[in-house]
Amino acid sequence: MSQKYIIGLDYGTLSGRALVVRASDGAEMGTDVHDYPHAVMDRTLDAADGQKLPPDFALQSPADYIETLEHIVPGALKDAGVDPADVVGIGLDFTSATVLACRSDSTPLCLSEEFANEPHAWVKLWKHHGAQDQADRIVKLAQVRREPWLARYGGILSAEMLMPKVLETLEWAPRVYDAADVFVDALDWLTWTLTGTLTFAAGDSGYKRMFQDGKYPSKEFLRNLNPEFEDVFETKMNAPVLPLGARVGGLTAEWAARLGLPEGIAVASGNIDAHVTAAAVQAVEDGQMTAIMGTSACYIVPGPELKEVPGMFGVVDGGVVDGSWGFEAGQTAVGDIFAWFIDNCVPQSYLDQAARRGISVHDLLTEKCRDQEVGAHGLIGLDWHNGNRSVLADANLSGLMVGQTLTTTPEDQYRALLESTAFGARTIIESFRQAGVAINELVVAGGLTKNGFLMQLLCDICRVPLSLGLTTQPGARGSAVFGAVAADVYPDVKAAAAAMGAKEEGVYQVDEERAGQYDELYREYQILHDYFGRGANPVMHRLKEIRRAAHIRAEKKRGPLLRRAGDHSEDAYLND
Amino acid sequence: MSQKYIIGLDYGTLSGRALVVRASDGAEMGTDVHDYPHAVMDRTLDAADGQKLPPDFALQSPADYIETLEHIVPGALKDAGVDPADVVGIGLDFTSATVLACRSDSTPLCLSEEFANEPHAWVKLWKHHGAQDQADRIVKLAQVRREPWLARYGGILSAEMLMPKVLETLEWAPRVYDAADVFVDALDWLTWTLTGTLTFAAGDSGYKRMFQDGKYPSKEFLRNLNPEFEDVFETKMNAPVLPLGARVGGLTAEWAARLGLPEGIAVASGNIDAHVTAAAVQAVEDGQMTAIMGTSACYIVPGPELKEVPGMFGVVDGGVVDGSWGFEAGQTAVGDIFAWFIDNCVPQSYLDQAARRGISVHDLLTEKCRDQEVGAHGLIGLDWHNGNRSVLADANLSGLMVGQTLTTTPEDQYRALLESTAFGARTIIESFRQAGVAINELVVAGGLTKNGFLMQLLCDICRVPLSLGLTTQPGARGSAVFGAVAADVYPDVKAAAAAMGAKEEGVYQVDEERAGQYDELYREYQILHDYFGRGANPVMHRLKEIRRAAHIRAEKKRGPLLRRAGDHSEDAYLND
Repeated sequence: MSQKYIIGLDYGTLSGRALVVRASDGAEMGTDVHDYPHAVMDRTLDAADGQKLPPDFALQSPADYIETLEHIVPGALKDAGVDPADVVGIGLDFTSATVLACRSDSTPLCLSEEFANEPHAWVKLWKHHGAQDQADRIVKLAQVRREPWLARYGGILSAEMLMPKVLETLEWAPRVYDAADVFVDALDWLTWTLTGTLTFAAGDSGYKRMFQDGKYPSKEFLRNLNPEFEDVFETKMNAPVLPLGARVGGLTAEWAARLGLPEGIAVASGNIDAHVTAAAVQAVEDGQMTAIMGTSACYIVPGPELKEVPGMFGVVDGGVVDGSWGFEAGQTAVGDIFAWFIDNCVPQSYLDQAARRGISVHDLLTEKCRDQEVGAHGLIGLDWHNGNRSVLADANLSGLMVGQTLTTTPEDQYRALLESTAFGARTIIESFRQAGVAINELVVAGGLTKNGFLMQLLCDICRVPLSLGLTTQPGARGSAVFGAVAADVYPDVKAAAAAMGAKEEGVYQVDEERAGQYDELYREYQILHDYFGRGANPVMHRLKEIRRAAHIRAEKKRGPLLRRAGDHSEDAYLND
Repeated sequence: MSQKYIIGLDYGTLSGRALVVRASDGAEMGTDVHDYPHAVMDRTLDAADGQKLPPDFALQSPADYIETLEHIVPGALKDAGVDPADVVGIGLDFTSATVLACRSDSTPLCLSEEFANEPHAWVKLWKHHGAQDQADRIVKLAQVRREPWLARYGGILSAEMLMPKVLETLEWAPRVYDAADVFVDALDWLTWTLTGTLTFAAGDSGYKRMFQDGKYPSKEFLRNLNPEFEDVFETKMNAPVLPLGARVGGLTAEWAARLGLPEGIAVASGNIDAHVTAAAVQAVEDGQMTAIMGTSACYIVPGPELKEVPGMFGVVDGGVVDGSWGFEAGQTAVGDIFAWFIDNCVPQSYLDQAARRGISVHDLLTEKCRDQEVGAHGLIGLDWHNGNRSVLADANLSGLMVGQTLTTTPEDQYRALLESTAFGARTIIESFRQAGVAINELVVAGGLTKNGFLMQLLCDICRVPLSLGLTTQPGARGSAVFGAVAADVYPDVKAAAAAMGAKEEGVYQVDEERAGQYDELYREYQILHDYFGRGANPVMHRLKEIRRAAHIRAEKKRGPLLRRAGDHSEDAYLND
């Protein structure tokens, strides 16, 4: 009996990966990865004339995506040793809110000579932050007009969404805006490219394009933002919205030839990179929360009903799996905080010790702190080094550490930082529960799962048993699940995930004694969280304002100002 | 015309120093220093049977003081090359609340065979903390009884004072208590030894023995502490109290011979080590504040009237200079915080850079942060890593840092810590002023004066011009000033300090622009100071309690408890 195979594609920030997955059981048959030649262009426009870019820019080249595709699909097929004729579908995920300006035939403007030297014509990567001003105006206007969709995003919008990025193009590069027939998110651009059919995926449309209850923000709203923006959804972001797992179309003959795959095989609607993890780790039923923990953390959970949860990133009907509301929340920095600490706050003797023993500094610090009794370090931290994008929804918050004495060690502070991120996770979980969204299981995936001490601590602090995803490639594996549904191997995502996903349940169990001790620290965290986060003492805001003013003074003293044409925001001086 | 010379003796924590000073102008003619052979005995009783000591003990050997004396006086005379016959007086200072149990002939009990192996018979150094329980009881009882002297010490007493230390001896080593004819502070013991006459110096009596308005705490108070303690001042701490600069007596023939000095020359009443600095830097007039800034900071200022200042260490009539009330306040850690930071929070690359350039890490960090605009780091710190012993008078407070982001650098945090100590200093200065104690000048001495950036920052933040003491040996030089008064070279301390002290006035001037910017940060410091320090959020207290409980759990898991006989305090487990 011949097997069927699915190609899962996973486009990250710096590289793309393909995984050949057996449709019957999700077995990972072979893989390949390729780095984008131009990586992230955040200083100079390397793919064109090399011009210096403004501080908040983060661009990519779509040619890199194509080059990657042509490497990884044949590479993974070769690695898997399967017959390409047995491949029946393709599923893909991409960093989302990664936006391209295209001609009507899907050609990106930036690849034409006319627009090659225009930064706004290149791909605005998810972390391009040039549209903060536009995002602020969108939120303010939506608040004033009481736009009903705003609550679906926890009351704020990130500058990373499509609407601010496209408005930024309109206002700063009107020539690009006018020439673009379509503004499209990379995940939809890739399915468009592979099938010749332009559709928008439901999840991404809801989370990143404000598509709610079957419609986009109103023309009246858009006109008030900028009269020329009024018809942007009608004229430049207009395509059928497909459920996740739906078939966008069949692989074109041209691409079948270029990739060595059968023509016409199903290409599934694209997905947000973190979200496919839910399918890879069998967490697509209501109440199963997936936590993807790496440099930052993303929490997604399906639920049967719409609920408004304070500070969530978004809630979208069919946003994670068709038939459920998909809730998303996150922490803007987790592993990034630990890495910052190691880079900036750990003394030489520790680095020497770690090097001598051939272990990482993270492992050394974990080893030194893991046997401490709960609370022995006498510290509490707030995990807002990159702002708070969960219940407080406030980018201008910052970190805090309280309780240092002259005997406080690096491992003490390291452990307090680990705990602070777990307290942050508990805050999110409790916020969901209080809003009526059930959370019955927590399945963790991502790079931080390898720190068993952190996992146990997360389990004890959140008082939830932890399951672990059993794949090291949750993105590509999860995408393959959606590909299998599009190829009609399974009737729906839940059935596909059950067969092709993998997790180990209950790997970490709550230790009641420690959990009780952490409860005590969590109460302290909550008091500090509310005091610094809810306005009683807006010191973090004021410090950022003071800091901004100081940077501007410093710039002025250094000489002529470097600012972008047309930029009236003081933030343009701050390149961090 | 022959010159007169004074010997200034300065007994510190680890060594004693002698300085030969010219009486006419304070010129430093020659010096010698000697380390105490047994240094501080805080683990084992090295000077006797080597027994293990309880965690909070810090003992010294009086034989070390004598050995030191016999080295440094002849050594300094030789270095100075002056004729010993021209030496007319001796002044001395000592670490204070450094307590000896003696026979009536001034022999310390610990030097007799009978008591050599009894830890309580040895010198209890100022930082011996075995009497915390006694100090707590003294404060509680004084509060209940509304003892009027308590307010003179900011409402609390440190465990370092003489009364708790002697009560500790009574309760834990009654045999030593019974055998002791006199409990005496080291500075008085040394003048007693040199002259054969037992007197108590006014400053030390006021600050460390609760001698106020001509009397000690009442017998009724003492009886309530412990019935056997009722007559401790009558029977074991009874001697005339002499003003500072008074002549205790003449150098005995025996000691004149041992030191190579003329018999009968004046020995001045002893002084608290930090306090003599005021005389060395010409800050003995009302309103002239001396700041001695090193590992910790001590602030002293004479004033014409008694005022009660919140959280001051003490106020004593004639405590710094006869004829004025001497006010003292302090910060429990300043340089110690910077050193902790360097030892625990600075990464390898910085240490490498400093080593490559042959500069200290402090200098490197200062260089990296000094050109920042005020507020550019976006941080505020609270300088309570060793508790707060100024206006909040609370040892259970701890450190705090707020405002970290993923771009916060080590030099950012270092500068924020420097600033936090200056904000702490400003808090003290403002507290004095609000209580009606004038501060017209700030004269800084001590190791931290060599950091010019810190000095300027202190000046800008406190909005007070800084004068700098011009001696590197403020202790010995200051003691010589008192020796000159005792020897009748000058009529009083003010005249002697004017002639023999030295400072440079107005070395640092307030930069109004920066001062205004710091005002903004200081307001944030004040809000945090009050929130964490005045009970709105006692998180620091709770963290210390939680920490204590965690340490006890850890000890219990480790096995049989190591605790001192008779000690019911949980703190005995905490050896930090």
